[in-house]
Amino acid sequence: MLSIVLVGTGNIAENLFHALRTTQHSRLIQIVGRNPVALQKFQKDVQTTSDLDQIAEADIYILAVSDSAIRSVSQKLSQRKGIVVHTSGATPMDALVSERKGVFYPLQTFTKGRILDFSGIPICIEASDVQLLETLREIAKSISKKVYEVNSEKRKKLHIAAVFTNNFSNHLFHIGEMICEEDNLPFELLKPLLLETVQKLEILSPFEAQTGPARRKDIESMRRHLEQLSSDEHKKLYRLLSESIAKTYEEKL
Amino acid sequence: MLSIVLVGTGNIAENLFHALRTTQHSRLIQIVGRNPVALQKFQKDVQTTSDLDQIAEADIYILAVSDSAIRSVSQKLSQRKGIVVHTSGATPMDALVSERKGVFYPLQTFTKGRILDFSGIPICIEASDVQLLETLREIAKSISKKVYEVNSEKRKKLHIAAVFTNNFSNHLFHIGEMICEEDNLPFELLKPLLLETVQKLEILSPFEAQTGPARRKDIESMRRHLEQLSSDEHKKLYRLLSESIAKTYEEKL
Repeated sequence: MLSIVLVGTGNIAENLFHALRTTQHSRLIQIVGRNPVALQKFQKDVQTTSDLDQIAEADIYILAVSDSAIRSVSQKLSQRKGIVVHTSGATPMDALVSERKGVFYPLQTFTKGRILDFSGIPICIEASDVQLLETLREIAKSISKKVYEVNSEKRKKLHIAAVFTNNFSNHLFHIGEMICEEDNLPFELLKPLLLETVQKLEILSPFEAQTGPARRKDIESMRRHLEQLSSDEHKKLYRLLSESIAKTYEEKL
Repeated sequence: MLSIVLVGTGNIAENLFHALRTTQHSRLIQIVGRNPVALQKFQKDVQTTSDLDQIAEADIYILAVSDSAIRSVSQKLSQRKGIVVHTSGATPMDALVSERKGVFYPLQTFTKGRILDFSGIPICIEASDVQLLETLREIAKSISKKVYEVNSEKRKKLHIAAVFTNNFSNHLFHIGEMICEEDNLPFELLKPLLLETVQKLEILSPFEAQTGPARRKDIESMRRHLEQLSSDEHKKLYRLLSESIAKTYEEKL
C-alpha cells in the first residue's frame, strides 16, 4: 500500500484529505502545514507536523500549497526517494525540483469548510515517466471516476478556460446580484436560473443553449437594457459580451 | 375553478402546460397557436385551435408568445371579460390592451423538450388591481413555491440581471469550451466546476465566492494567461472582466 504525505492545510488539502482517507488503495500518513492552528482539525485522524524538516518518509508527497510556495517546498523534498507532485492548474510540472515528479490537479473550485464528493471531480495527472504516471493514475482512480492525462502545456490552457467559466461567470453572478439589490430584489430570484443555466449543459452545448437579445440580434431590447444600466462598467461589459455573442452566431451562420 | 386558455406553443407554453395540468386549482381548457404542427403535441390532452377567432371563453388568458406578438394577440382579446396576462420579463404590463390585465413571469430559461419542475421556479406577478393580483397569486402558488410581486419597472431590471447571469455566463462557458477545443481537451472536464460554481452560492454570495488571479491581483498569472489566449476578442474580455473583478475588491477594502 502506497504511503502519502499531504503538504498543505487549505481548501484543496482539506478536500484531498477527506477523499484519501476513504480509499483503501493508499495510506495517508501525515499532514504538513506551517500553521499549527490550521493543522488542528486534522490531528485526531492523522499525524501532523508544522516543521518541514520533520516530514515523514513516504512513497508520494502531494503539495497542496499556493503556487508561489511550490518551488521552495519541493526543494525541501528534493533528496527524498518518494514522488513529489503538486496540485496546481497554473504551474508547470518542472517547477518541482525533484527528479521523480508529477502533477495531481483536481479541476474544481474548493471552498473553506465545504467537503465535496471527490468521485465526480476530474483529476488531471502528469508525471516525469510512464511508471509514475501509472502510479498517479491508480491513486487518482481510487478517489475519482474521472482521471485524465494532461500535460503542463494543456493544463495551462485548461486553467484559463476554468478562469472564464468559474471566476468570470461568478463575477457576472455578482453583477446580477448588484442589479437586483439596486431595486431591492432578492438575489434568490435568480438562483434557479443559474442552476438551470448549468444543468441544461447536460443535454446542450453552450453554443446551442444560448438565448437572449444578443443571440437574436434584438437591437431594440439591447438599447433599452443599456439605458437601464446605471453603472458605466456594467454598460461596457454588456456591450462587449453582447458583441461577442452576436459575432459567435454570425460566424457560424 | 378558474378556467385558463394558454396562447403559445413555445418552450414557456410547453412548460406552463405541464405545470397547469397537474394543479387542481384551475382548469386548462384550451391551447392556442398559429402553427397547427406545434399544436399537435398538446392535442391528446387538451382542446387546441390555430384560429385566434376561436379562442374559448375563459377566466384567464395566459399569453406565452414572443414579446413582439404580445400587443397584437392582446388586441384580439380586448373585448373579453377574462383577465389577460403575459409571461415576458422584458415587456411592461401596459403592452396589454385589455383593461383587466397582469403579468405572470416565470424567471427561468426554458429549453425545447425539457420539462422542468415548476415548483422551484420563481413566478413574478403583477396585476392591474389588487383583486386580480390575488387571483394570479393563487394560480402561481398552485404551481410554484416561489411567488413574488414585481412591478414592470423592477421586472425590467430583473430581466437585465438575468441576461448577465444566464446569457452572458453561458457565453463564457462557450468560450471555455472553445479554449478546450483548441487543445483537444474535452469540455466535460469543466462541467463539475460549472456546477459547483453555482451550487456553492447556496452558502456564499458571489462576492464571497470569488477566487482566481483577478481577485488576488496576481498580475503575473494574468499576464501569462493573456499571452496564452489566441483570440483578440477573448483577450479583450479577459482584460475587462479581470479589471472589473479587481475593482470590485478594491472598492470594498
